Amino acid sequence: MRLEADAFGDVEIPADRLWGAQTQRAIATFGAGEPRLPIALLRAFGLQKSAAARANAVLGALDEERAALIVRAAGELAAGAFDDHFPLPVWQTGSGTQTNMTANEVIANRANQLAGAPLGGKRPVHPNDHVNRSQSSNDSFPTVMHISAIIETEMHLLPALRDLAAALEDRAAAFSDLARLGRTHLNDAVPVPFSQGFSAAAVEIRRISCRMADAVADLHDLPQGGTAAGSGLNAPDGFDEAFCRHLQDATGRPFRAAAVKVEAMAGHDALVALSATCEALSVALTRLVNDIRHLSSGPNAGIGELILPDDGLTSSIMPGKRNATLGEALLQVCHHVCGNHTCLTRGAASGVFELNVSKPVIIHALLGSIAALSQSIPRFTSGCLAGIRPNKRRILENLDRSMMAATALTPHHGYDVVASLIRRAEADGLTLREAAIQDGLMTVEEFDRLVDPVRLARGGLAVVPSIINKES
Amino acid sequence: MRLEADAFGDVEIPADRLWGAQTQRAIATFGAGEPRLPIALLRAFGLQKSAAARANAVLGALDEERAALIVRAAGELAAGAFDDHFPLPVWQTGSGTQTNMTANEVIANRANQLAGAPLGGKRPVHPNDHVNRSQSSNDSFPTVMHISAIIETEMHLLPALRDLAAALEDRAAAFSDLARLGRTHLNDAVPVPFSQGFSAAAVEIRRISCRMADAVADLHDLPQGGTAAGSGLNAPDGFDEAFCRHLQDATGRPFRAAAVKVEAMAGHDALVALSATCEALSVALTRLVNDIRHLSSGPNAGIGELILPDDGLTSSIMPGKRNATLGEALLQVCHHVCGNHTCLTRGAASGVFELNVSKPVIIHALLGSIAALSQSIPRFTSGCLAGIRPNKRRILENLDRSMMAATALTPHHGYDVVASLIRRAEADGLTLREAAIQDGLMTVEEFDRLVDPVRLARGGLAVVPSIINKES
Amino acid sequence: MRLEADAFGDVEIPADRLWGAQTQRAIATFGAGEPRLPIALLRAFGLQKSAAARANAVLGALDEERAALIVRAAGELAAGAFDDHFPLPVWQTGSGTQTNMTANEVIANRANQLAGAPLGGKRPVHPNDHVNRSQSSNDSFPTVMHISAIIETEMHLLPALRDLAAALEDRAAAFSDLARLGRTHLNDAVPVPFSQGFSAAAVEIRRISCRMADAVADLHDLPQGGTAAGSGLNAPDGFDEAFCRHLQDATGRPFRAAAVKVEAMAGHDALVALSATCEALSVALTRLVNDIRHLSSGPNAGIGELILPDDGLTSSIMPGKRNATLGEALLQVCHHVCGNHTCLTRGAASGVFELNVSKPVIIHALLGSIAALSQSIPRFTSGCLAGIRPNKRRILENLDRSMMAATALTPHHGYDVVASLIRRAEADGLTLREAAIQDGLMTVEEFDRLVDPVRLARGGLAVVPSIINKES
Amino acid sequence: MRLEADAFGDVEIPADRLWGAQTQRAIATFGAGEPRLPIALLRAFGLQKSAAARANAVLGALDEERAALIVRAAGELAAGAFDDHFPLPVWQTGSGTQTNMTANEVIANRANQLAGAPLGGKRPVHPNDHVNRSQSSNDSFPTVMHISAIIETEMHLLPALRDLAAALEDRAAAFSDLARLGRTHLNDAVPVPFSQGFSAAAVEIRRISCRMADAVADLHDLPQGGTAAGSGLNAPDGFDEAFCRHLQDATGRPFRAAAVKVEAMAGHDALVALSATCEALSVALTRLVNDIRHLSSGPNAGIGELILPDDGLTSSIMPGKRNATLGEALLQVCHHVCGNHTCLTRGAASGVFELNVSKPVIIHALLGSIAALSQSIPRFTSGCLAGIRPNKRRILENLDRSMMAATALTPHHGYDVVASLIRRAEADGLTLREAAIQDGLMTVEEFDRLVDPVRLARGGLAVVPSIINKES
Repeated sequence: MRLEADAFGDVEIPADRLWGAQTQRAIATFGAGEPRLPIALLRAFGLQKSAAARANAVLGALDEERAALIVRAAGELAAGAFDDHFPLPVWQTGSGTQTNMTANEVIANRANQLAGAPLGGKRPVHPNDHVNRSQSSNDSFPTVMHISAIIETEMHLLPALRDLAAALEDRAAAFSDLARLGRTHLNDAVPVPFSQGFSAAAVEIRRISCRMADAVADLHDLPQGGTAAGSGLNAPDGFDEAFCRHLQDATGRPFRAAAVKVEAMAGHDALVALSATCEALSVALTRLVNDIRHLSSGPNAGIGELILPDDGLTSSIMPGKRNATLGEALLQVCHHVCGNHTCLTRGAASGVFELNVSKPVIIHALLGSIAALSQSIPRFTSGCLAGIRPNKRRILENLDRSMMAATALTPHHGYDVVASLIRRAEADGLTLREAAIQDGLMTVEEFDRLVDPVRLARGGLAVVPSIINKES
Repeated sequence: MRLEADAFGDVEIPADRLWGAQTQRAIATFGAGEPRLPIALLRAFGLQKSAAARANAVLGALDEERAALIVRAAGELAAGAFDDHFPLPVWQTGSGTQTNMTANEVIANRANQLAGAPLGGKRPVHPNDHVNRSQSSNDSFPTVMHISAIIETEMHLLPALRDLAAALEDRAAAFSDLARLGRTHLNDAVPVPFSQGFSAAAVEIRRISCRMADAVADLHDLPQGGTAAGSGLNAPDGFDEAFCRHLQDATGRPFRAAAVKVEAMAGHDALVALSATCEALSVALTRLVNDIRHLSSGPNAGIGELILPDDGLTSSIMPGKRNATLGEALLQVCHHVCGNHTCLTRGAASGVFELNVSKPVIIHALLGSIAALSQSIPRFTSGCLAGIRPNKRRILENLDRSMMAATALTPHHGYDVVASLIRRAEADGLTLREAAIQDGLMTVEEFDRLVDPVRLARGGLAVVPSIINKES
Repeated sequence: MRLEADAFGDVEIPADRLWGAQTQRAIATFGAGEPRLPIALLRAFGLQKSAAARANAVLGALDEERAALIVRAAGELAAGAFDDHFPLPVWQTGSGTQTNMTANEVIANRANQLAGAPLGGKRPVHPNDHVNRSQSSNDSFPTVMHISAIIETEMHLLPALRDLAAALEDRAAAFSDLARLGRTHLNDAVPVPFSQGFSAAAVEIRRISCRMADAVADLHDLPQGGTAAGSGLNAPDGFDEAFCRHLQDATGRPFRAAAVKVEAMAGHDALVALSATCEALSVALTRLVNDIRHLSSGPNAGIGELILPDDGLTSSIMPGKRNATLGEALLQVCHHVCGNHTCLTRGAASGVFELNVSKPVIIHALLGSIAALSQSIPRFTSGCLAGIRPNKRRILENLDRSMMAATALTPHHGYDVVASLIRRAEADGLTLREAAIQDGLMTVEEFDRLVDPVRLARGGLAVVPSIINKES
Repeated sequence: MRLEADAFGDVEIPADRLWGAQTQRAIATFGAGEPRLPIALLRAFGLQKSAAARANAVLGALDEERAALIVRAAGELAAGAFDDHFPLPVWQTGSGTQTNMTANEVIANRANQLAGAPLGGKRPVHPNDHVNRSQSSNDSFPTVMHISAIIETEMHLLPALRDLAAALEDRAAAFSDLARLGRTHLNDAVPVPFSQGFSAAAVEIRRISCRMADAVADLHDLPQGGTAAGSGLNAPDGFDEAFCRHLQDATGRPFRAAAVKVEAMAGHDALVALSATCEALSVALTRLVNDIRHLSSGPNAGIGELILPDDGLTSSIMPGKRNATLGEALLQVCHHVCGNHTCLTRGAASGVFELNVSKPVIIHALLGSIAALSQSIPRFTSGCLAGIRPNKRRILENLDRSMMAATALTPHHGYDVVASLIRRAEADGLTLREAAIQDGLMTVEEFDRLVDPVRLARGGLAVVPSIINKES
């Protein structure tokens, strides 16, 4: 243990930890347990403190020597060297102040260590006066919220969606010459192109990706420079622009100084928007996965029209049983994401005055959603979706069973006549064809021409599928 | 009462109602009570059936005479003549089929009436064979969902947001030379420009308006032409394009035939996106209203820095008591909108196969949100926000009370020294100024220069407020 | 139009309306549109004002004559005579003050009318001094929230649940000698008693009913007597007890004066609890309805094991198509109820200090849930559930198709051996029986004895179903 | 690495891990990352497998030797020895099958190790045939969900609530002779007893605790014995009862065999109910914390009536700033719990047929809520609530500022007269007293008697506070 001091007196700190007195007091208050803030957020503090030090140096608010030390230590933080030096749980002050202080303390201690000075001495680098120079938690914490949300979405989630959409389009192409029975209200309807479900999901994923990218674009407006309560107090003129320029250099991303800095301190509308796209994604994925689960259900006493890749996982009691395991995993992620969105919007709505104090839970929820989706979507895409195959025998069986082909007769005989025909067929146990001919409604030839499954399915197929399902 | 028949037999219908047998059977099943589907949706059926009839006529799927009758009857429906002829509650079949059938029956009966034929005779115009020609509920109902959501948002909600943003910017201008005490964690912080809160809200409202307009733009992709299950069965080639062209003519809006029609039948991602912007709006409004409520609280034993317009409403027991009534009304709308979004996303996620069968509750929730917001925002804007005035006496009192001006000393004396100074001032019951001078930390003149409230507030003010709050 | 006055001056009021100046001012502020507060709440004001007048009279705070007039007018309100005299929408002051004032004004005017005095004269009965005597909106509005929630739940929802549970138990009995294929992960599993799903739902409905009745019991604690802010100011000693006694007499329900009256003014935990049981009910109903929808799906190319009663409703394009219409209606109610719960908990959490000001939207959401459930559950119970029949042919077909009967072999041959057997059968296109015998694993007789479907299903059946499914 | 085999072939497993082939295959499918299933759930598998082994032994389904090995290994699991041997994330098959298999494999390998046999040999103890004997994941996983939810709630959350309620009652007692200004709509109202807010919160916490304990009681009904799909297949007669008896012995808790076992496999109503009490708790805590935050706000330019204990945490930029840190931490937990409830109810509603496949995410959400609440409530209770003190100077100042004492005059002079008096006082800048006397409405003596703050506050105080606030 070593001693460090702050305005309230001395505290003991584990000798091998880089955090300081405020962090240690925070442990006494909040504990040091799970859940931790996301690693991606902690590392973003490295980028933020580095850009701040450079901006301070350029503007004369910090000497070059200290700035260089801070940049070096912050770089190590950004690279993941100090993930274990952030002991606080999410359940801390709602401004994230204590975690900002941990970042300040860890960087100061590491910088001093690099300078050959002892830990805890605050010389040459002081956590508040130098690392936090021209900054407040009020502007720094939301800035790292934005940075980490941008990076995680662009590095992991958007690529996962691109691959998912591509796999859907690939499946649409692979199934392009197949019709299957359409089902509305879960019930037998008319034949439809098998591919249209994959195409529809691809449309949704691509549309959601666009909205997600738009939401990410808005997050590039940063509140840094607003310092306490958006006042800008203690930051030199031009700090906001200089900060964004340095951050842009370090990351290659188009960060901008927000015109009204308090907006992203008191409100989190831009994060709400990003989370809403995750929620919408969950809604779309829920439907996609459930369609696949139901179309592959059975396999013998269900629909059974799709065959999923075998993952070697089975039941603990029923040998040989196979299930849509990756689909179920993804469905649960969808529930989780919807829950995170509830959490996030409640938190975002709770702010009063110049500061929303639900920041840690907001970013925990948002990065939690992004991580869970980024982790599960690629596994579902490659492990399930990409390997889906049609069960042509079952597809044909099911097509043949439906009475709904009768719909094709209505333009010729009128709705009421066909409705009566079906009621009679059902009552007398006849096929539609038998009933139609018994009733003298049409000849065998006419019937076969009108309700030809090829013709029916054509309604929704781009090209005439002359060999629809026939080769199976 | 009069008799009408369908494939299941005869039913009795009130003589003065235009609906037919399927609607009457649906009343027997679902009842005829509240809540009804939104009027905006019902009237949109008029637009939809009219455009369908024109498209059918052009494509030779309907004779000109019948088409003209349908167009005329549908026009009356669109104009609101038959609002009372849709008896079914929201709680009906999830495809909205029964309400599509009501539209078909009302238009058929009205068309036949116009043609001098008796109600219920289905001649010359048949509800299924002619009014519903080339259509299914599967494509017609989501089409009117889109149409009505577009119209209600563009006609009512987006203009309300424009006015709200303008009023916020107007208040920001009106308060532009005022500083007030900033508050973080609800607690005294440093001075901030009074205008920044209004500006921040304006930024959020304008950003949300953009997202809302984008969501509305996406809704112009219509599934009409997909007929049953997206198959396109029984619709002539080119029906989708012709339909959109006629609807475009009638409304002046850029409707497009969706490339993958089943997407908007089975999924409702575009409606989820619009609802999400309403939810985000609720989050932003919640904060805005709460800021105004808290800043005007008291008026005597609270913050009291804002004075709200008097609306003449008061307490039933405490005479003279005034409250932020319109703010509270709007807050409740925000809760309602969040609830509607929950409902809508649950409904949207529930679809399987070719049809989502939560359509009536989805559109009820969405149009309910749009209506409540469109109704309450303008009242709040004009009845509360636009008339807000500063209470300069209280603003100055509160500025003077805060110890946080000490923050201005930290760049000069360091964080730790100032922290100790504040602890000592608190412990000894001194003002900051007294403690600073007693400690020999600085002269009176230095202190007054450094913690000049004008200078402090300047940090966040665009211009030097040489007369900040001083004229009061 | 007639003139009435309040402390702010004169206002014009429609001559045939009983409301007064404060209501008319509220219309100017909030409008007079939809959605209205629930009728059940408005009528409960009749019960509340009547009990208050009686308590005031007994305690000497009101003369007998005025009390009698108030009781008479309030009785008419309770009986529904003045439903159209409450013009305000839900979106009003969050205390419900304006609606309490409408009740005060309507009753005062009606009482004066009964006394032969002109409307608007406030003599002999004054809305604040006499009708609202010893009361505040702060205690009166939550009191009517409790009263109306109790009455609506006990009169409509709990009986609907009793009937639903009974119908489920009746179906369990009717299906008691049937097995069907169980399905886990949507996929073929081992045979199960058909009745167990109905029994499980009945268990859930009865358990939820108990929790709902407990929540209703808690609501009998009333805040009346707390007056402004829970202070009890201006209410005579013993008013709370006297009020509850009179309300008890009028309704036969065990109302009690809450020990800490501010609790139900500032918090709405007891209403949250009731709403939570509605939400839980929605979760249980969602599963029940989906099970029925999926078991009846097809009917030909789906599971098809259940046959639903025919309601004569069908598709607008596909003649003869039948769907689980009442199930879909109920599912949508479930989404709506979940949305209402979100709204209600957000509102309930929003209170600060002595008063929660989301009262109108809270009670609108709660009574909306109760009404929708009370309306739709009985229709589902009688129109769908009670008439469900098994399709024995399909049940047997599906039982025969599943490979999962192999599970019965594992206690005899071990999990690994049976797993290999199934893999081989699948690979070679053999039945399980063929593979088992080819492998020399057992004799035909042994196999047939071990995987006898009767024996398998017995595992979960209360009695040996010697004629399981065999008579079909 | 070592080799293990299952029906699908060989797999390589890290030599120091006790899991087996199915777990390793699951890692290939789902990865081995965060978030893990809660430790409490994993350890509950130890209790469950041990009770199952004992029941099997008693019923002759397992030899005593193997049973003893399993009981010993399972005991080590229950004690926490194998927390690191469950590598799978929450995002796995929705039945939790893979985690049940991990438990089976870890126990089998450990049992074989104890017997001196090599890992992976499945002798003498086989994971499926012996550890999972008479069980399925379908019944085992929900059983451990129940067990872990019961234990965590009873061991951690309910005691935390007892302490919280006691601390609230202690504060009510400590503040019992104090009045403060009541506030409704955030605005000045009449005086109220300071204690009533603490008492109201205590009432809510105790009521919620009761509902929580009821929900926990219902969870003692266990589905164990239902095996696959609730069929009971492969479990000996009486297994369910024997299992519960052994579990009861091991834990001292009154577990019961559920009458309809599929209920807790397909539905999770009892878990929904428990989660709903956590949500209701969050609503109540949100209000409690916000009241404390607002009453302590300022401290100088806010309400400032409460003084919170100093925790030594402060701002990174504003030295000396103190905030309601533990309150903010708890508020964020409340948002998190509401999010978890959304997740859980979505998951619970998603089940179809005999098995709900959202089990891992459901228990992750529920135990996550319980843990976060159990962790944060005691810190808030002891670190904030218990040390709250009144700021008597501010309390009196605020009482004196309000005009609402005028309410006390209304029984004597009527509502309208007093309303005019207040309007005049406001218009002319007079105090209420000055205006009343100028108007000749009453004498100084009468006024002082009627609006005596002691008398006003008495309305809501249990005893006459003869020294109300006066000693400060």
